[in-house]
Amino acid sequence: MELLCAGSELLDGRLNTHLAKISVLLACRGLGLSREMTLPDDRAALADAIAAALGRCDGLIVCGGLGPTFDDLTREAASDALGLPLRYHAPIFRSIQSRFSKIRLRLPAENRRQAFVLAGARVLANKNGTAPGQLLTLPPREPGGPVRTLALLPGPWRELHPMLMDEVLPALVKRYAARVFTERLSLHLAGIPESAADEKLTRLVATAGGRRSFTILSYPGQVDFHARVTGASASAARSELDRVRRAALKAVGAFTLWEGDEPIEAVVGRTFAEKRLTLSVAESCTGGSIASRLTDVPGASSFFLGGAVAYSDSLKRDLLGVRPETLRRFGAVSEECCREMAEGVRRRTGASVGLSVTGIAGPSGGTASKPVGLVYLGIAGPKRRSSVHELRLAGSREFIRSRASTRALQILLLGVRS
Amino acid sequence: MELLCAGSELLDGRLNTHLAKISVLLACRGLGLSREMTLPDDRAALADAIAAALGRCDGLIVCGGLGPTFDDLTREAASDALGLPLRYHAPIFRSIQSRFSKIRLRLPAENRRQAFVLAGARVLANKNGTAPGQLLTLPPREPGGPVRTLALLPGPWRELHPMLMDEVLPALVKRYAARVFTERLSLHLAGIPESAADEKLTRLVATAGGRRSFTILSYPGQVDFHARVTGASASAARSELDRVRRAALKAVGAFTLWEGDEPIEAVVGRTFAEKRLTLSVAESCTGGSIASRLTDVPGASSFFLGGAVAYSDSLKRDLLGVRPETLRRFGAVSEECCREMAEGVRRRTGASVGLSVTGIAGPSGGTASKPVGLVYLGIAGPKRRSSVHELRLAGSREFIRSRASTRALQILLLGVRS
Repeated sequence: MELLCAGSELLDGRLNTHLAKISVLLACRGLGLSREMTLPDDRAALADAIAAALGRCDGLIVCGGLGPTFDDLTREAASDALGLPLRYHAPIFRSIQSRFSKIRLRLPAENRRQAFVLAGARVLANKNGTAPGQLLTLPPREPGGPVRTLALLPGPWRELHPMLMDEVLPALVKRYAARVFTERLSLHLAGIPESAADEKLTRLVATAGGRRSFTILSYPGQVDFHARVTGASASAARSELDRVRRAALKAVGAFTLWEGDEPIEAVVGRTFAEKRLTLSVAESCTGGSIASRLTDVPGASSFFLGGAVAYSDSLKRDLLGVRPETLRRFGAVSEECCREMAEGVRRRTGASVGLSVTGIAGPSGGTASKPVGLVYLGIAGPKRRSSVHELRLAGSREFIRSRASTRALQILLLGVRS
Repeated sequence: MELLCAGSELLDGRLNTHLAKISVLLACRGLGLSREMTLPDDRAALADAIAAALGRCDGLIVCGGLGPTFDDLTREAASDALGLPLRYHAPIFRSIQSRFSKIRLRLPAENRRQAFVLAGARVLANKNGTAPGQLLTLPPREPGGPVRTLALLPGPWRELHPMLMDEVLPALVKRYAARVFTERLSLHLAGIPESAADEKLTRLVATAGGRRSFTILSYPGQVDFHARVTGASASAARSELDRVRRAALKAVGAFTLWEGDEPIEAVVGRTFAEKRLTLSVAESCTGGSIASRLTDVPGASSFFLGGAVAYSDSLKRDLLGVRPETLRRFGAVSEECCREMAEGVRRRTGASVGLSVTGIAGPSGGTASKPVGLVYLGIAGPKRRSSVHELRLAGSREFIRSRASTRALQILLLGVRS
């Protein structure tokens, strides 16, 4: 299987995360990628690369270049590479027309290009955009070999992802997936640096190879341990995973916040919903990013009431009820202010738990006694009285904000669980 | 110029940011990448790819596969591809030995492999690791053409980066950089779909080639037009850019929200600061993401006071002063509620401008009369009375939230400018 990403911007500084995401989606289905290529919007180069890939492997996924503009050339390049004509497909054009009329826009003539499909290809509907995908079956490379598959998908992840999940991956699995069973484990650790996690996991990681593979990835404030095992049967894979899981938890169980693929905000949401608790947040230096992460998860309204982004001192006072004396004596970045913010947002919103953050994200605003990176996290409720945690972070504004919001969600999870 | 990244982990979920970083480093030196490939630790596949790349282009940078372990095969693959022997280089081995003795570790026998160098290659010292890089000059592809260059660099960025900056880029610039001066233009458009922007820019874009290149990129709610021009002198490049800029603004000036490389939140912040206006926001369906984007920008406290994330009806009432009758008669997702949210947050925080968002991000919560994707954006102040904009968006929860927040920032910018 190979992946081809088309787009001049990808060779000009634009970060592309498709390879990382698609390779994981393939791997957990027993499919492997043998090569990835990124090419500019150059019809001849794309055609050469498509032809070469389909001479080397059985499945090729092409991302990008299906838009309506002059530099979207994947359709034409695939047609050149395979010697197959492009055919006009009226239903596609009608569906683009209806999409435009829904949002009350005139359909430009350029969009007609998106209605051309490789002869024999299946059209993949686009739920989140105009460019349809195409799935083409080609004869085997060698007599008796498997048929080949060419998938043309739009570049934007929100458009590509549904087609990949609903149509392309099922077809690829049916045609090429090895008859092995795979099981995966993800442990999300907190309160331990990557190198210490690595050291604790050394013995387990040394058993990699054959049926086991391991990865340790580190993010601001969090270390993730991923294991993947395979077996000749579903139960063999499960027993193998059990052995890996026991060894991993023995090594780093004390630092494991949760298992599985969900992001922490979803785990927080599920925990609050299960315990029938409600939450509101009072954010200063994180500026709404904790609320934003919590409401990324569908159904957040079942536990999340809202809160205040109290960036200025006056809002800490007026919206959250922080006492003017507290601000005067201790300042906005202080344990005292943080505690009053958590208690204030809890009281004013009637939530079971109030979470607060105040700190100095930088790059300016730091002093000798309160340097950039000093952050307080406060929790009020559900039962006990409030508590405040002090963080001293180093790094860019972006890093400090991201780490503070992750640490806040971790402390929230620990606080509500205990 | 091509880039080859070697490493099975890169085809198994590990995000690789080398392409994005290296392409920028090349571009600002007048060098372009025509292809990137990612390959697993497979000696034959690497050798094939190296040979193919050096048949297509003059410069190839290979990253990764220079370590000491069994799966580090770049040296051997390059030797196979070029028919050049690997030669043992005693000083490299001594320098690895001394590195290990400094940190009091026994040197594993495996590390001897790192002391083998392609015949004729220049050794590039590694400041931050054991694997040396290699820089090899090869004869031209065609008689009279430029010599070719093969650079083998270690995978970790902290090891690769010094070699790239100190040795590889200077050599590539000397050999291949066009003696040209580059100027760039970015226009950020709103209120126009990608295909319509393309239509309006057709004539300009048709002049691409030679000194001009163009890209149109579309995001939720926004279309970006990028142009890059070159000239034989700095002033020639500037005049060429002026011509392109005039033509572009003639075509899409009416839709151009701003020029340059800043994100919209930075432009909003600068505009507010210049006009000495302050802002507060009241967010429902965007859940804090607008506040979060605004406070991503350093110095946001000069104009941004904060606001409320009023996810529940009770918070819309208690924190923002939305009238219970409005909620009862029109509901939380209504023009009336949105207006009262904007006016309420402005009044309660004393800001010059209040921004509000209420809508249905989905996936659940929609009805026939108020479907998922219905979003209201409200602005109160600075002078005139409040206004409310209705959006009807289609797509995932993530898409609707992201588009609503981008559109809110656009409307804010237009409202404050006018």
